[in-house]
Amino acid sequence: MTIQQLLDMELPIIQAPMAGVQGSALAVAVSRAGGLGSLPCAMLSLDAMRDELNTIKSQTNKPFNVNFFCHTPPTPNAEREASWRTTLTPYYQEYGVDPDALPTGAGRSPFSLVAAEVLEEFKPAVVSFHFGLPSTELLERVRGWGAKILSSATTVEEARWLEARGVDIIIAQGLEAGGHRGMFLTDDLTTQCGTFALVSQIVQAVDVPVVAAGGIADRAGVSAAMALGAAGVQLGTAYLLCPEATTSKVHRAALQSKAAHHTAVTNLFSGRPARGIVNRIIKDLGPINSETPEFPLASAAIAPLRVQAESKGSGDFSPLWAGQNVGGCKEISAAQLTRELAVGL
Amino acid sequence: MTIQQLLDMELPIIQAPMAGVQGSALAVAVSRAGGLGSLPCAMLSLDAMRDELNTIKSQTNKPFNVNFFCHTPPTPNAEREASWRTTLTPYYQEYGVDPDALPTGAGRSPFSLVAAEVLEEFKPAVVSFHFGLPSTELLERVRGWGAKILSSATTVEEARWLEARGVDIIIAQGLEAGGHRGMFLTDDLTTQCGTFALVSQIVQAVDVPVVAAGGIADRAGVSAAMALGAAGVQLGTAYLLCPEATTSKVHRAALQSKAAHHTAVTNLFSGRPARGIVNRIIKDLGPINSETPEFPLASAAIAPLRVQAESKGSGDFSPLWAGQNVGGCKEISAAQLTRELAVGL
Repeated sequence: MTIQQLLDMELPIIQAPMAGVQGSALAVAVSRAGGLGSLPCAMLSLDAMRDELNTIKSQTNKPFNVNFFCHTPPTPNAEREASWRTTLTPYYQEYGVDPDALPTGAGRSPFSLVAAEVLEEFKPAVVSFHFGLPSTELLERVRGWGAKILSSATTVEEARWLEARGVDIIIAQGLEAGGHRGMFLTDDLTTQCGTFALVSQIVQAVDVPVVAAGGIADRAGVSAAMALGAAGVQLGTAYLLCPEATTSKVHRAALQSKAAHHTAVTNLFSGRPARGIVNRIIKDLGPINSETPEFPLASAAIAPLRVQAESKGSGDFSPLWAGQNVGGCKEISAAQLTRELAVGL
Repeated sequence: MTIQQLLDMELPIIQAPMAGVQGSALAVAVSRAGGLGSLPCAMLSLDAMRDELNTIKSQTNKPFNVNFFCHTPPTPNAEREASWRTTLTPYYQEYGVDPDALPTGAGRSPFSLVAAEVLEEFKPAVVSFHFGLPSTELLERVRGWGAKILSSATTVEEARWLEARGVDIIIAQGLEAGGHRGMFLTDDLTTQCGTFALVSQIVQAVDVPVVAAGGIADRAGVSAAMALGAAGVQLGTAYLLCPEATTSKVHRAALQSKAAHHTAVTNLFSGRPARGIVNRIIKDLGPINSETPEFPLASAAIAPLRVQAESKGSGDFSPLWAGQNVGGCKEISAAQLTRELAVGL
């Protein structure tokens, strides 16, 4: 069965959920165009999530995807927080940020019973997870209204783990991909494979359909992914310049600059490895720092710097998420982009 | 013009030169089968190189490729050597290696005037370089007998640099690739792109034909690379189990074990980043160590440990070069493998 049949959509194109840079507008546009639009909920309050879901439901009858993180929230570690804030002190001084007035809290919540309850009011046809899967109870709840389940694998082992738990479609997230690595069975970055090697091996290891993600930017990339045996593709970066995305001004500028050709997997912004454009903070501290508070706690310490820098037009402290191929980023409507990616499919 | 026309061969398949694990036999088998066989010369003396070239010439009239490294030999740094040997001391003790009797010298020589002189006796149709290009004088000398020049690019910048210097075909070496990263304009590993992202971008950046390398293991991978716009493919890992390769016993065993699914880019074995199967020394010291002597000097300190461990059937200290996809490794003849990769092309 093709993923178009499985998900009742026209095109084997999934718009990657991208928390912080898009909401319902992008999801609606892609779903209406025949692809699968996605609403990222990791950074939404329950009320905001309900509003966004209402908006989508009021604007399209097409299937769409609702995405959640499913990490285990860490116990804050005061010592580690203090050490990390000390590392950032020179920047706090430079920007006049009071380190004693830093926000606390996680910023990103995992999928939960209350989220499932809100979600059930809308019964979306597709629910996807990042960082593995939620508890069996929560997963069964989602399956209860007939939703298809998607999750990302960054290794063959993760793909087999997801298949064993009944996931309907596996997203093979190659190392080229922008944003957070979905890795959940390991935290060893050397296990992370390029899209070419990963898709090829996951397709051979599992029986469920595999969607390729990472480094795909255009129609040729879609064909190549299909040639490797993928049943579809998931693209995020390519949609970042679409008017329907909420990508910030500094992020848009960075994507259109030469800087966009150099990305790195970094844990500075959230505590988990994620790919973004190399900016000042990554250059200064190195992309991976063992001192960062655990995901998602690290975001609190850097957030005020980001706000201050962005107010001056600088992305020096912003997570400028992007994959290793920004060649597909265009300032065209998400519908047009979706159709261009699928010409002749 | 296709690379088959340009190089006067039947199939757009290049066997990657792999110093230390193959010689003329593999090159002859692949060239005879219609692909482009390669003879790696980085670890050969001039006499050995002449012998190998004689062997190839006596066994086939088909075009073949002769490959050289073109690094700048470093100045040995006694302090760094000493520090590195101190790091390795526990292993020397474990294996009864006398640290005062370690071999010295580089182990790998760059392309040189004397090498060019030997090469000119044979006038090979194709000469390829790793780590950039040799001096203009040396390059002109090689061009003098009509050889086509190939070199590897690991970034778009390197591809443009090579094109500007008249390289006939650029090998886009994605991060999945086994063995030494060909990087030469940067030593920052975060610049290294997965094959999917790299091929796609280099194809758009240059006008010369681009050959895809890294993570390609089978016919589907070849199709995918062509769909991305590559004019051909270069595979190394897939040939490592062929009887014509000189892959060691421990290396063959590792490639056929579960361990082969976890590789890392490491500088422990030579001083330059290269991808190999994660073994004890990589686990113990981490894949990238800032203390290693400069390439290629690092190999001397580890060589006796390798010999000792291999004599006991262990690959704990061996460079078990492999790419991120060993799915194509088969114990079949190189000719059969080459033909399987090209079915229907």
